[in-house]
Amino acid sequence: MESPLASLLWRSLRVYQIFGANTDVGKTVFTTLLTRTAKKLWKDEKVAFLKPVSTGAEDEADDRHINRFAPGVACNTLYQYDIPCSPHTAAIASGRPIPTDDTLLAKCRDYAAQCATKEKGWLFIETAGGVHSPGPSGRTQADLYIPLRAPSLLVGDHRLGGISQTISAFESLRIRGYDVESVLLFKDETYENYQYLEDYFQKNYGIPVISLSQPPGRHGNPERDAEAMERYYDRKDCGEIMCQVLETLDKVHQTRLSSLDSMATKASQHIWYPFTQQSLVGPKDIMTIDSAHGDYFQTIAPPNQDGQPTNAPVLRSSFDASASWWTQGLGHSNPKLTLAAAYAAGRYGHVMFASAVHQPAMSLAETLLNGMKNPRINRIFYSDNGSTGMEVAIKMGLRAARKRYGWDTNQRLGVLGLKGAYHGDTLGAMDCADPGIYNEKIEWYEGRGYWLDYPTILCKSGEWGVAVTDNLKSSFGEGRNYPSLNDIFDIKAREARGEQKRYEEYITSALQSCKDQGRKFGALMLEPIILGAGGMEFVDPLFQRTLVNVVRKSSHLFGTAVQDASGAAKVPNEWTGLPVVFDEVFTGLYRLGRFTPSSFLGVHPDISVHAKLLTGGLVPLCATLASESIFKVFLSPDKTDALLHGHSYTAHPIGCQVALESVKEMQAMEERGEWNWAKHRGWVAPEATSQDEHKSDVWSIWPHEFVKALSRQTDRVLGVWALGSVLAIHLKDIAGSGYSSNAAAGLRESLDLGRANGEGGPWNVHSRVLGNVLYVMASQVTSETSIKQLSGLLMESIEKGK
Amino acid sequence: MESPLASLLWRSLRVYQIFGANTDVGKTVFTTLLTRTAKKLWKDEKVAFLKPVSTGAEDEADDRHINRFAPGVACNTLYQYDIPCSPHTAAIASGRPIPTDDTLLAKCRDYAAQCATKEKGWLFIETAGGVHSPGPSGRTQADLYIPLRAPSLLVGDHRLGGISQTISAFESLRIRGYDVESVLLFKDETYENYQYLEDYFQKNYGIPVISLSQPPGRHGNPERDAEAMERYYDRKDCGEIMCQVLETLDKVHQTRLSSLDSMATKASQHIWYPFTQQSLVGPKDIMTIDSAHGDYFQTIAPPNQDGQPTNAPVLRSSFDASASWWTQGLGHSNPKLTLAAAYAAGRYGHVMFASAVHQPAMSLAETLLNGMKNPRINRIFYSDNGSTGMEVAIKMGLRAARKRYGWDTNQRLGVLGLKGAYHGDTLGAMDCADPGIYNEKIEWYEGRGYWLDYPTILCKSGEWGVAVTDNLKSSFGEGRNYPSLNDIFDIKAREARGEQKRYEEYITSALQSCKDQGRKFGALMLEPIILGAGGMEFVDPLFQRTLVNVVRKSSHLFGTAVQDASGAAKVPNEWTGLPVVFDEVFTGLYRLGRFTPSSFLGVHPDISVHAKLLTGGLVPLCATLASESIFKVFLSPDKTDALLHGHSYTAHPIGCQVALESVKEMQAMEERGEWNWAKHRGWVAPEATSQDEHKSDVWSIWPHEFVKALSRQTDRVLGVWALGSVLAIHLKDIAGSGYSSNAAAGLRESLDLGRANGEGGPWNVHSRVLGNVLYVMASQVTSETSIKQLSGLLMESIEKGK
Repeated sequence: MESPLASLLWRSLRVYQIFGANTDVGKTVFTTLLTRTAKKLWKDEKVAFLKPVSTGAEDEADDRHINRFAPGVACNTLYQYDIPCSPHTAAIASGRPIPTDDTLLAKCRDYAAQCATKEKGWLFIETAGGVHSPGPSGRTQADLYIPLRAPSLLVGDHRLGGISQTISAFESLRIRGYDVESVLLFKDETYENYQYLEDYFQKNYGIPVISLSQPPGRHGNPERDAEAMERYYDRKDCGEIMCQVLETLDKVHQTRLSSLDSMATKASQHIWYPFTQQSLVGPKDIMTIDSAHGDYFQTIAPPNQDGQPTNAPVLRSSFDASASWWTQGLGHSNPKLTLAAAYAAGRYGHVMFASAVHQPAMSLAETLLNGMKNPRINRIFYSDNGSTGMEVAIKMGLRAARKRYGWDTNQRLGVLGLKGAYHGDTLGAMDCADPGIYNEKIEWYEGRGYWLDYPTILCKSGEWGVAVTDNLKSSFGEGRNYPSLNDIFDIKAREARGEQKRYEEYITSALQSCKDQGRKFGALMLEPIILGAGGMEFVDPLFQRTLVNVVRKSSHLFGTAVQDASGAAKVPNEWTGLPVVFDEVFTGLYRLGRFTPSSFLGVHPDISVHAKLLTGGLVPLCATLASESIFKVFLSPDKTDALLHGHSYTAHPIGCQVALESVKEMQAMEERGEWNWAKHRGWVAPEATSQDEHKSDVWSIWPHEFVKALSRQTDRVLGVWALGSVLAIHLKDIAGSGYSSNAAAGLRESLDLGRANGEGGPWNVHSRVLGNVLYVMASQVTSETSIKQLSGLLMESIEKGK
Repeated sequence: MESPLASLLWRSLRVYQIFGANTDVGKTVFTTLLTRTAKKLWKDEKVAFLKPVSTGAEDEADDRHINRFAPGVACNTLYQYDIPCSPHTAAIASGRPIPTDDTLLAKCRDYAAQCATKEKGWLFIETAGGVHSPGPSGRTQADLYIPLRAPSLLVGDHRLGGISQTISAFESLRIRGYDVESVLLFKDETYENYQYLEDYFQKNYGIPVISLSQPPGRHGNPERDAEAMERYYDRKDCGEIMCQVLETLDKVHQTRLSSLDSMATKASQHIWYPFTQQSLVGPKDIMTIDSAHGDYFQTIAPPNQDGQPTNAPVLRSSFDASASWWTQGLGHSNPKLTLAAAYAAGRYGHVMFASAVHQPAMSLAETLLNGMKNPRINRIFYSDNGSTGMEVAIKMGLRAARKRYGWDTNQRLGVLGLKGAYHGDTLGAMDCADPGIYNEKIEWYEGRGYWLDYPTILCKSGEWGVAVTDNLKSSFGEGRNYPSLNDIFDIKAREARGEQKRYEEYITSALQSCKDQGRKFGALMLEPIILGAGGMEFVDPLFQRTLVNVVRKSSHLFGTAVQDASGAAKVPNEWTGLPVVFDEVFTGLYRLGRFTPSSFLGVHPDISVHAKLLTGGLVPLCATLASESIFKVFLSPDKTDALLHGHSYTAHPIGCQVALESVKEMQAMEERGEWNWAKHRGWVAPEATSQDEHKSDVWSIWPHEFVKALSRQTDRVLGVWALGSVLAIHLKDIAGSGYSSNAAAGLRESLDLGRANGEGGPWNVHSRVLGNVLYVMASQVTSETSIKQLSGLLMESIEKGK
């Protein structure tokens, strides 16, 4: 599922989806009773039945049964296959074109939208076979129907073995986020499954189990059989029980709506939001998320100006254009990640990690250490998020430098970094960033370090180039353009031309002047390639590479190494100058198209920090990787020389297992060439892509031509860059740029309006801005189709705002 | 499952458990083929079959079938019920006593242990019906057999609907941490389920699917039927395929063993452990955890001195006596928590939280805010762990105090706290603790604050009392004993006697002297009742209460309040003196027996921080709760006045959903009286419990008499305390106490030896020490039986060490 399909929710229409614990458990009988009773109770309402896929002889099809026994109910079958077997087999055997999942879901939604009139109504959607019976495309129905997110009814299995079938089927739905509102099943007085299940579902989930006597068996005479069924459907107990069920379902619908309607108000009253000035945020500014799937949230659609008609869709599909604060990789609610999380929960829960080890932590360690292809790195330290992982890195770096240079514990140490750095919000991580809007009002903040200026990369007016602000021209010279982004990353060619020389001079002179002032440093700390929270600044990779090289060559500018009793001065892959820390929290693990962004620079850090995409976007986890030489600094016979850091949930098995699954899946995607559509840019005009670019591993899912076209919108656009899944648009701002700028707010609002009625219902783009920068960050599974849709909307929005 | 059952793992015995995707799918046919082929291939080995529970006519029982068609295979059935229905129904109908789950599992283990001879062998354990068919006790088999953790084979369903049944059954096993090594099923050429499933399991899980032609049907003539079966079992293809399966299973067994055997070495080479001096930790000190269930880890048992015989159990059951660094509440691998986590993963994955809201975050907010019964609290700020949650609290408190007292941003502010405080390992949280062993070597550490001395509570030589060290007697007077712990918590009676007066004087004088030195404070920061990492110090609750009261009455000692334009001085429940922050990360949410430990003190904080037990012990999550008056300080038209803190996974839905489930479950347990066995102390000699204590809500799962008896071991024991699920034994240490002490190491080692062969196999206690303190922390679901076993072992170990 890739296209922006809005879930099925209308105020006027109660939609329920009926799943079976097995085939032949009575789904159609229960659906008939539900529709028939609904039609009796709500005479003036529309009561509808939808069978998306039906297999078996047409004259025995479920819609005919409903037509006969539930008169007045609107029936629809989308795909009818005459062969009595699983839909995926029947679809192939039919010889007809096999509908895609997107098409099938869109048709379900279209039918539901037709049913949603201004008057109230009901729609029951009946699936085929069991919950995991494959749909026409071969995807199992439990996976296929997730985006509809209709509340569900599960028809249980009353036969021998049915307790097991019913619970397992329920679990398959539950772990996919379905809300099962009732379990319905026949009473079989031999097995009495209903008694067990009533107790089980009530106790564990508070879900009611409704049981009915079994319908009469068939005896081969169609007329007599039909009469017997008619009598069964007419039974008082059947009607009464269904009445109760429907009344409950009616309430469930109302409760869901009122919960969604009131949530933003409650949130504004009780939630204290991260990084948010709440005096500027009222309930109407709070996005209520009903669920999320793939790249899309399902959010409450804003009411129209003249109030919300009851047949307007309540939800819309919102493209998650911040990748949920830069975390998403494999799509929201990815069943493989869910199963990985649940497996670890089921096997371990959480187990303490000090001097202990478990398989997910060990396997993830090996996968990351190998994946980095960094010969310096040998150790992994787990923590909970990028900020704590950076604090660990700081503690590592400072100690290593202090021991190496023989400074005492009172020596004031700083970090060497870039202006606009951001490493997280805990106080130690904050202190690694230069003073600025993010931190200067924090009471305990104290910028500890020295932060260098740098040249940036942007595509401006269709040309890629190194940009240098006026005040830095004396240091870096004039900016210059390059034929392509690829040429900017062709570091060897640039070094052969001597482009790094001015950088070396600038850096060496800055370090010398720090030395002259008596400043001491414990680490060089960089976000490779992109400074994210600092305003999506794309740093010239040659500058960062040169910085690392100069620092490593310049031990004499930092201190005088002492021979360390711990042997730190003798281990392999030892650092020189300063320990180099790469904060890859945002830019790592394929966000920029590669496993590690350090490969763009052709230099390896001594310490690197990985989070966000690490778990594919599911749960918090961070890994700080370090070299053996850094590790050895902390070895001693004294317990208190250890790295004194730890969190209770360090290396929690769920996080490690999910990260293992995510990292391996992304590696496999690369290997399988799943990003080749973007790497080879098939849908860009061929003349725009040179042979070199085809081969290049510098790539983005945002096509070059689109980036160039955006950058030519010079009325509003200062420049654009795209790399991996990230697109950043730097907008012009008369009042000056930076975090406090509002230049991008208009564009964001335009994206937020989106398409009032796209295919599959309304959709929009939920984007975040950083001052004058609007960025759109896709996931690692975003499709070419989605990128086309987004590009179109972006370009229109930019043009509209002129 | 509560007793310490060791999982089934021997070097010499390959054990596999066979589950069915449904009843009647051919489990016995496959098991017969497996045992029969194993016996042919490994002629000299023992091949055994176990049917723990069998239903249906005895002469049709599976063991008879195996006996007939797999000669030489040892067969055993533990419970045979003649009625052909689900075991729970059959067990009741039999009129015989129904075996408990513990008994049934212990018998399975006993039989497996018998099979594990020095020679190699095989054991196949066949379950009854489908994966979730209930066992005799009513618990479903998928839940029941978790503790055995035998690698499993799933017999798939070849019939119509069987794809769905097979996948759902697999998922029910997977989410409980079972390793399904193969799916076996019959070939049905109409439905071809095996084709779909081969592809599905290979692609999604890398699990092989093995299919075989169907066996002949029965024709009513037992002899002819048997001959036909014999011919089927003799078929070359059946034998060949089973041969491959068994060779794979043999390898799986070896791989599991070598992975477990090598993991500690790999870990010592590549993992950097939290809070651990790794020069003192070799591979043999690293605990390899295969899985965990309830209160027990399954860990590699240490080899005997004369090497490990092949028939020694590889795993032992280790009581998790640190509650996995104080996190565990509802038991490891609790299926309800797993399902809650998976539901949220399936519904949302993670969704960004800045200005957004989702149901789990909102429901958890309401549950916590209501549960605290703290009229001051109205807001919730989510973060990832106790340390980050405390950093949030610091930022809140400092800003509120600075604004109230009109200090500028350069004003140096500290916190007021207690000596030995610990609030986490990020640098800001570290700065809130007084200088000590945990932090003094950290380069950027700077204790910011003033930390008071305090009197402690201990049970010494059988008497509960307030203990005062010699150097503090001038401040607090002599210590004194009380009839019971209850009397110590009877704060009203103690205040009526004026016991708080010396505390008031001491505190006021300390504050005055800080004021005289020009010190400024931003918050009073306390761990209520117990200072955990600071050495399991039990602070006199009257002292903490008095401290809060004095601070709140003493605004004049902190500054002069300015009228604040933000209106902070006018909101309800406003703080006076200083914002009071309670760090309830360790002590909250029933760890000490109550929802919040602040109820022991009878005072409410303005800010409180909650983590660890918050998610029942599954995933990292933290909630910082705050009053509206604190919140309002951050409101302004300026974005940068906001609380600038946030993590990518803030309020991640999995964490919130699991926390919601955990908190509600613990509240329900309290309501259902599930801790009454401990509260009413039924198994302590009645004369030991006064009427008052019966009614009291000051309780521990560790019986008073046991605590008193421990405290009388005065050769080794300084004093003991127990509250809620925590027992702390302060040991005598000639070389002085504190974190660096080794006094408790001997006791820990003795617990680590445990019982070489208890019921259900070997078990031990994995405990952690803090200097001279050994603590044992149970979960909120630890049973009375476990506490008896642990108490016995503890007392023996203490006595042995004399």
